[in-house]
Amino acid sequence: MNWGGAGLVGSGIWVIFVVMGIKCFLVALVAATALCEAWGAENNDSLVVRPRSDGRHVSARGMTQSLLSGKPRLEFRSDMKPEEFAGWRDSVRTAMARLMRHPALPAQEPRKVAETRHDGYRVEKWEAYPLETAVVSFLVLIPDSVTEESPGAAVLCIPGFGGTKEYLSGVRSGDFALEQPPVDNPSTNAMAREYAKAGLVAVAVDNVSFGEQADCGRADYLTSSRLLLEAGWSYLGFNSFQQRLALEWLKKQPYVDPERIGVSGFSLGTEPMMALAMLDGDIKAFVYNDFLCRTRERIMVLTALDSEGRRPFPNSIEHLIPGFLLEFDFPDIVAAMAPRPVLLTEGGLDRDFRLVGEAYELSGGKGNAECHHYPKYADASDRSELEELPEGLNLNEFFRLVNCDSPSHGFKAALAVPWLKRQLSKQ
Amino acid sequence: MNWGGAGLVGSGIWVIFVVMGIKCFLVALVAATALCEAWGAENNDSLVVRPRSDGRHVSARGMTQSLLSGKPRLEFRSDMKPEEFAGWRDSVRTAMARLMRHPALPAQEPRKVAETRHDGYRVEKWEAYPLETAVVSFLVLIPDSVTEESPGAAVLCIPGFGGTKEYLSGVRSGDFALEQPPVDNPSTNAMAREYAKAGLVAVAVDNVSFGEQADCGRADYLTSSRLLLEAGWSYLGFNSFQQRLALEWLKKQPYVDPERIGVSGFSLGTEPMMALAMLDGDIKAFVYNDFLCRTRERIMVLTALDSEGRRPFPNSIEHLIPGFLLEFDFPDIVAAMAPRPVLLTEGGLDRDFRLVGEAYELSGGKGNAECHHYPKYADASDRSELEELPEGLNLNEFFRLVNCDSPSHGFKAALAVPWLKRQLSKQ
Repeated sequence: MNWGGAGLVGSGIWVIFVVMGIKCFLVALVAATALCEAWGAENNDSLVVRPRSDGRHVSARGMTQSLLSGKPRLEFRSDMKPEEFAGWRDSVRTAMARLMRHPALPAQEPRKVAETRHDGYRVEKWEAYPLETAVVSFLVLIPDSVTEESPGAAVLCIPGFGGTKEYLSGVRSGDFALEQPPVDNPSTNAMAREYAKAGLVAVAVDNVSFGEQADCGRADYLTSSRLLLEAGWSYLGFNSFQQRLALEWLKKQPYVDPERIGVSGFSLGTEPMMALAMLDGDIKAFVYNDFLCRTRERIMVLTALDSEGRRPFPNSIEHLIPGFLLEFDFPDIVAAMAPRPVLLTEGGLDRDFRLVGEAYELSGGKGNAECHHYPKYADASDRSELEELPEGLNLNEFFRLVNCDSPSHGFKAALAVPWLKRQLSKQ
Repeated sequence: MNWGGAGLVGSGIWVIFVVMGIKCFLVALVAATALCEAWGAENNDSLVVRPRSDGRHVSARGMTQSLLSGKPRLEFRSDMKPEEFAGWRDSVRTAMARLMRHPALPAQEPRKVAETRHDGYRVEKWEAYPLETAVVSFLVLIPDSVTEESPGAAVLCIPGFGGTKEYLSGVRSGDFALEQPPVDNPSTNAMAREYAKAGLVAVAVDNVSFGEQADCGRADYLTSSRLLLEAGWSYLGFNSFQQRLALEWLKKQPYVDPERIGVSGFSLGTEPMMALAMLDGDIKAFVYNDFLCRTRERIMVLTALDSEGRRPFPNSIEHLIPGFLLEFDFPDIVAAMAPRPVLLTEGGLDRDFRLVGEAYELSGGKGNAECHHYPKYADASDRSELEELPEGLNLNEFFRLVNCDSPSHGFKAALAVPWLKRQLSKQ
């Protein structure tokens, strides 16, 4: 019996669980070596979650992981016939609407609360009212070139984790009386400002809990996520609903051409973008600024034990939408955006780009999905080419295998801005 | 404007969020003082999550907490008429069955895998098969006094967080070839052994992820909970299903009188006990060995900022069942156990005991709910008497206000064993 990785968990010593917390007072001793050996000779690699010899899992991790081991119900199949595509896409949209649980749009319309000028555009601050108990503000950047007489194209900009609408908008210290944070040097991710400078009306909304939605200075997204889940909702459901209010408002502005609206999502912001893509057929084009990830697969393969014998935890609970991963994985949703144009700016596995490409071809939108790898992986000979990821990875190994150059993660303005401007130009 | 608690979060300095993680690269500065001041003059106590002056929350914490602020749909109302009680109880049972999402009982029956003898009873180890991909074992303690000719009463014992079936059973080192952990000194919580010594057949099952269900020596209940939630299930749903298999098996054993079966839950184990109580009308009596907590109220009032400006996080995600708290809180479920006898061994608020008492009276089971406070709070003059808890508590303040003497948390054998034996004695 080969225990290559057993030094991490075994070594013949007892592992001590000190059980802490509210209801806990118990100290239990667990014989890790004896336990692991009991799993049988097949389990010769502790990096992988394996059942015992009769195919049954003894560990709860194995049991519960097996619940996600089948294929998603609405996975895109490349053997789908062209005439089946629209029906499949409708099923994806229906499932997404059910999972997002958006309430009815509020009767109360957004209200303007402040305004300031930057060079070449004005910035307005508006408030929306997603719930009777909630107020959420957003910023609108309106280029001087856009008027009621000559309505312009527009883009909803959704920040990544930790980003704010002010940061995306390049709002300066003192621009608004009550605002934070000041961003005198908006670095490389002033997404909304970049689009506005290129002549697009740009709207920026915070992700739930971040920026102005912080709780006494802390972006307490974990508690907000938990409370939403307790209430049968989810972070993504509420977040995409907040974004949607700004999008619905945008369609009604006289200086916006409602036929030329796009969404640009960065990192965490790609999730509400995917939700909105399924819920709103009026959106004309999408900028997907992240690597294209199979988030379900990622949970299954990130099982390497670290130096303390722990496996990586799936990403935190703002990404949890109960039942979501039984329906589809991210590439399936991007496939269901077809034939509407999408730009993917930060690579991933060519496997998934091929899948998206096949969906676009099937839908009659061949070429409408434009995919770019990270510069580091631009040359195909530098990329890993896998149809299936192996189990037992740690996060660095995972990133390497999916061609994600995470230190270079950032808004790819040079790709995104001209592409979106072109997609939203008058035909 | 009074900022009594502002030293914790304000002090005129900037709070720096260093945003870390997979998709994060952003450092954002947040002006905590300015932000808190923007909430308006009413918000003069940062311990409490308050809306701004128009009643709307600016913080996501406030917005999302407001989703739980109404009353649960199936809250027990003491103004209910006796003839309404059974209908209400059926609604509670239906909601619980929906929330627990138990699959069909498996076709494959449990199988005995080992046996050993202790003084006065034998201990058998059995395997059950909750899923095609899962095996879960349980221990059965069968007193010598119990035979097929003279079937005995029986009790399903559910451990607390960190407890194991071996610990509850007082199983000794070497009792079973492959087992862990050895418990040569089972301390004060050998619940199953105590019942067996008193002549009851006792079954002990691990909570999901603990003991034998650990993952290479770690009780990775957080990942298991997360995976269950991803799959649209929950820790409590799967856990109560595992417990239920042992209960169903117990009913069929020739040495058990199926008319005399009880459930004894300790701490975390009270949760699957409450679920089973709603799902299984055959259970005759319940030992609820914890303080009676309004878990929904607890989330709402635990909002004190700690020395680092953080509010307490609601308990971890093994307690999360999406939508559960919209339906009922724990005292409502205990009320719906009426008129079946229940013993509550570790106090709580008299408010909640009165509620339970009223339900029992309404159901025709007056006196069937027996409630004991912690010895520290046995004298009414030592107890806090509240109808509603104030917001802004930390955990210690909460425990004090609900009369929970947490250091004395433990199986109350002296109360539970004779009580349950009496309830399950032949009439």
